[in-house]
Amino acid sequence: MESPEIIPKILIVGAGAVGGFYGGKLSQAGAEVSVVCRSNYEAVRNRGIVIRSGTGDFEFKPKYVLRYSEEYPETPDYVIITTKALPEIPLASIIKPVVKSETGIVLLQNGIDIEVSIAHEYPKHDLISVLAFIGVSQIEHGIIWHQDYGRVELGLYPKGISKKTRVLLDLFSKAGIEATVTETIMASRWKKLVWNAPFNPLSVLAGGVETHTLLSDPHTRELIKRVMTEVVALARHDGYILPSEIIKKNIEVTEKMPSYKTSMLLDYEARRPMEVEAILGNAIKKAEQFGVPTPYLYALYSLLKLVNQHFKKTLFF
Amino acid sequence: MESPEIIPKILIVGAGAVGGFYGGKLSQAGAEVSVVCRSNYEAVRNRGIVIRSGTGDFEFKPKYVLRYSEEYPETPDYVIITTKALPEIPLASIIKPVVKSETGIVLLQNGIDIEVSIAHEYPKHDLISVLAFIGVSQIEHGIIWHQDYGRVELGLYPKGISKKTRVLLDLFSKAGIEATVTETIMASRWKKLVWNAPFNPLSVLAGGVETHTLLSDPHTRELIKRVMTEVVALARHDGYILPSEIIKKNIEVTEKMPSYKTSMLLDYEARRPMEVEAILGNAIKKAEQFGVPTPYLYALYSLLKLVNQHFKKTLFF
Repeated sequence: MESPEIIPKILIVGAGAVGGFYGGKLSQAGAEVSVVCRSNYEAVRNRGIVIRSGTGDFEFKPKYVLRYSEEYPETPDYVIITTKALPEIPLASIIKPVVKSETGIVLLQNGIDIEVSIAHEYPKHDLISVLAFIGVSQIEHGIIWHQDYGRVELGLYPKGISKKTRVLLDLFSKAGIEATVTETIMASRWKKLVWNAPFNPLSVLAGGVETHTLLSDPHTRELIKRVMTEVVALARHDGYILPSEIIKKNIEVTEKMPSYKTSMLLDYEARRPMEVEAILGNAIKKAEQFGVPTPYLYALYSLLKLVNQHFKKTLFF
Repeated sequence: MESPEIIPKILIVGAGAVGGFYGGKLSQAGAEVSVVCRSNYEAVRNRGIVIRSGTGDFEFKPKYVLRYSEEYPETPDYVIITTKALPEIPLASIIKPVVKSETGIVLLQNGIDIEVSIAHEYPKHDLISVLAFIGVSQIEHGIIWHQDYGRVELGLYPKGISKKTRVLLDLFSKAGIEATVTETIMASRWKKLVWNAPFNPLSVLAGGVETHTLLSDPHTRELIKRVMTEVVALARHDGYILPSEIIKKNIEVTEKMPSYKTSMLLDYEARRPMEVEAILGNAIKKAEQFGVPTPYLYALYSLLKLVNQHFKKTLFF
């Protein structure tokens, strides 16, 4: 007879592509995973979530499928937020009804400084910040296509590693996800931004183009390097010295991968709101705070902000 | 009996909206005006050009309507180039068959440094550079809608005023066009670029927006000022000190005018090639030559160049 294990209770808030995939994986690892859904609620309630993947298809039946976090009848060990990082989503209040004193709050989102408002509202909770390196999309409600990758990197925000961080790490690992833990998750976020800040915005602003198109034109290639240089400088002012070869390596790796559409371009084409503030706006704010000139980030941000607004207007009015 | 006047012979190359309008006006002033047409050749040959204008509709029957400049049977006093300023149009060779030693070459186009290749090919000719401040569009082949304005400013390139410049000036004036002559047409081009360099590219890159939309967002408003500041700096390095209030005034004037779509945005929406090199590319080259950092111009140029290429691909393939 096996010794009784404590089964972690997890509530995923925003069970789209990312939340559905990782929720399913954590469920496979033995956690009791529930989901809060929005647009795909009916489908997920009726049929659960199906993940199609080159590494093996699987089904994910959440313990509870909910419309609102307040409907969750138990106390979660972790609330994992996997919505897009958009300032118009009031995350702190969305999770308020379900966050108890022992609940770890997990932000599995893109961008820089996206933890600020949650950290401010929940100063005594473990706030675990997670970066996901994954290609995944929801092809129809409740059906997720896992294209590639899946690695996660996690750490306590703003720094350190807690017991809850380690438990979550082990759970990811048990699920077959390549997972690493870091004392300095902010450094990891800056590192990821070195790629995201140029490639995501440029792919949209240059007329809807793929990664290799951006790299094969000498001017956009140079622009990418200049944006990357600004991000490295911001990271340095924030106290994180990124590896000196990071720009060269990011470009080399992107050149070796097949050409593809960035996630922001996919959002743009599908007329979904883009993560402009998480990727660029917060970086601009840091730059102002540090007094560091970042003209390229500023130009991209100003343009993309209007593109995004124009889009939303098209969508909702 | 009046004294016999010399009637100037003018060949307009590129009789679209701008060429049709000014050609018609110069014809009204007594010049013998012929046109080289491309897409609108049949219509113009059959029915001439009709100009609809708040200041009075009029018809323009060119002396000759031609497909190629070599078909022009006479010797022109002026060849007036009114095509768009696009590097892929080989202007120097297009006009070669018709330019004789006494022919003045007139460039009535947008942008900075657009005179270079013609000046190089025709070093002994009067090269008259003209800026037009006009709102005009071809609503169907041979039918032109003159929305507003019409002022021209002209001077010899790179500087000075020749007899031919004055004769052309008088002809514009006689046609009822507000026309001024300048010793420093390059300064005028830089001045006009102060407006064109931010507003035209931003209107496209920010998602297809009008002038007041760009000015009412604090970030794009600031971006406009920063681009203008770079243009003023380039002009200074080129030897032209622009008025210190020029940025403030440009913004004030644009705010007082009704909100509108820039000519570049109209081109973009109609999937016509945009004047990216004339407005931004040549400015970037100047910046490199002077060793002046112009990150905002560089970012706009890099992005817009790709948008333009992507468009052309869509058009022709």
